[in-house]
Amino acid sequence: MAQLIEVDSADDPRLADYRDLRDVELRKSIETAEGLFLAEGEKVVRRAAEAGFAARSFLMAPRWLDGLADVLAASDAPCYVVSEALAEQVTGFHVHRGALASLARRPLPSVGSVLEGARSVLVLEDIVDHTNVGAIFRCAAGLGFDAVLLAPRCADPLYRRSIKVAMGTVFSVPWTRLPDWYDALPMLDAAGFTTVALTLAGDSVDIEDAVAGLDKVALVLGSEGHGLSEHWERAASRRATIPMSAGVDSLNVAAATAVACYVTARR
Amino acid sequence: MAQLIEVDSADDPRLADYRDLRDVELRKSIETAEGLFLAEGEKVVRRAAEAGFAARSFLMAPRWLDGLADVLAASDAPCYVVSEALAEQVTGFHVHRGALASLARRPLPSVGSVLEGARSVLVLEDIVDHTNVGAIFRCAAGLGFDAVLLAPRCADPLYRRSIKVAMGTVFSVPWTRLPDWYDALPMLDAAGFTTVALTLAGDSVDIEDAVAGLDKVALVLGSEGHGLSEHWERAASRRATIPMSAGVDSLNVAAATAVACYVTARR
Repeated sequence: MAQLIEVDSADDPRLADYRDLRDVELRKSIETAEGLFLAEGEKVVRRAAEAGFAARSFLMAPRWLDGLADVLAASDAPCYVVSEALAEQVTGFHVHRGALASLARRPLPSVGSVLEGARSVLVLEDIVDHTNVGAIFRCAAGLGFDAVLLAPRCADPLYRRSIKVAMGTVFSVPWTRLPDWYDALPMLDAAGFTTVALTLAGDSVDIEDAVAGLDKVALVLGSEGHGLSEHWERAASRRATIPMSAGVDSLNVAAATAVACYVTARR
Repeated sequence: MAQLIEVDSADDPRLADYRDLRDVELRKSIETAEGLFLAEGEKVVRRAAEAGFAARSFLMAPRWLDGLADVLAASDAPCYVVSEALAEQVTGFHVHRGALASLARRPLPSVGSVLEGARSVLVLEDIVDHTNVGAIFRCAAGLGFDAVLLAPRCADPLYRRSIKVAMGTVFSVPWTRLPDWYDALPMLDAAGFTTVALTLAGDSVDIEDAVAGLDKVALVLGSEGHGLSEHWERAASRRATIPMSAGVDSLNVAAATAVACYVTARR
């Protein structure tokens, strides 16, 4: 049972995990250094707990305690009970979904274990926006993808905003980081996947044709601004595109991913 | 030819159109009351001008003047030339895409004129997030939809953030507001459209089956949080869903729209 501890000073060092949640750069360095991540809102906190992540602590106003009673009962971490004004002062924003939890990251699984048994995989090169990473995970989960692999510089799926937009699916879809950017696509080939890069390259074909009849597929997506690196674009077995109307060259990356996942799932 | 006017005081009343661009509520009321909208970045400013919107003024640092020389040459509006620091002081953020323009809104076209000749139409009930509205317009434009209709409370496609995410496609896709929320769907029926509501309702069918073989289709989308109103959900001729994996009930609205537009465009 989590111990309820009332805290009434914004300077209390026990609240350190929850400071300045809107400062993305600061949070990225704190969360990496401390090996923690933040979950926000009753639903997401519950999903993190159900996925087996251990809480370091909880922070919430009294009115949110009841909704999370089962989660608190199952944890030994302290629960800091604060006024809504104090929560806002510490975090830097109005916590309208109420509950926050700081959870311990776990070591990332090996690429091999994430790919085991997988038939449809998403590979993200350098998606830098947490909202996009979250939306892409939600697509992967909803449209039947088995795993997500991230290039070393792709944004963090366990960042608060990613988790929220993903509706917690970052806890259920198996994922890990690719340790080796340069040889990632040949590695997938060797593991039996056909790598299909989503791109506007001249030799790209309609995505439906690119994936038709394939068994194991790895869909490869590039960054928001400039798309895939030339190295990955050329290293992929196939280059595919979503046919567009005249005058419009692309969708945003989350929308393109949704269409590509949908088509690939029905191959 | 736009007259270049150097301005060095943040209090200069001529900069009123550009104040506090991050304050969404303030901007919504200013822009509605004044009948203006803001375009940000060289590409988007150019697209607005090409779509025939008249500039009230431009605001930019000297280094952006060259890139927009053609647009400025074709306009009679003043161009306020300011330092980057002053631009940041007035707007409230670092204007990293450089150029801003304040443009005059035009009267919205009639529903009838927007629907004329259209075969695929999107109907948005109460999408409240400007990012989603922008992403949906970009889908509509890229995936071959002919028009977008907005319920009275749907967020503004000409809000700066909507325009930016839409990559300016809000200027090219015909759209207007539905004056009558209650009878909007029967009106579309009467105009020869089959209205297909995207929903999780119990009697919804696979989106591919719902649109197969249809001539004129109006895809009807609800708000981010709670989806469609019950009234619209029941008023639609058909209810359709995107098949999801077990345990995930939906995609975010922009991703769902992308898939639904893709499927509908290929009916």
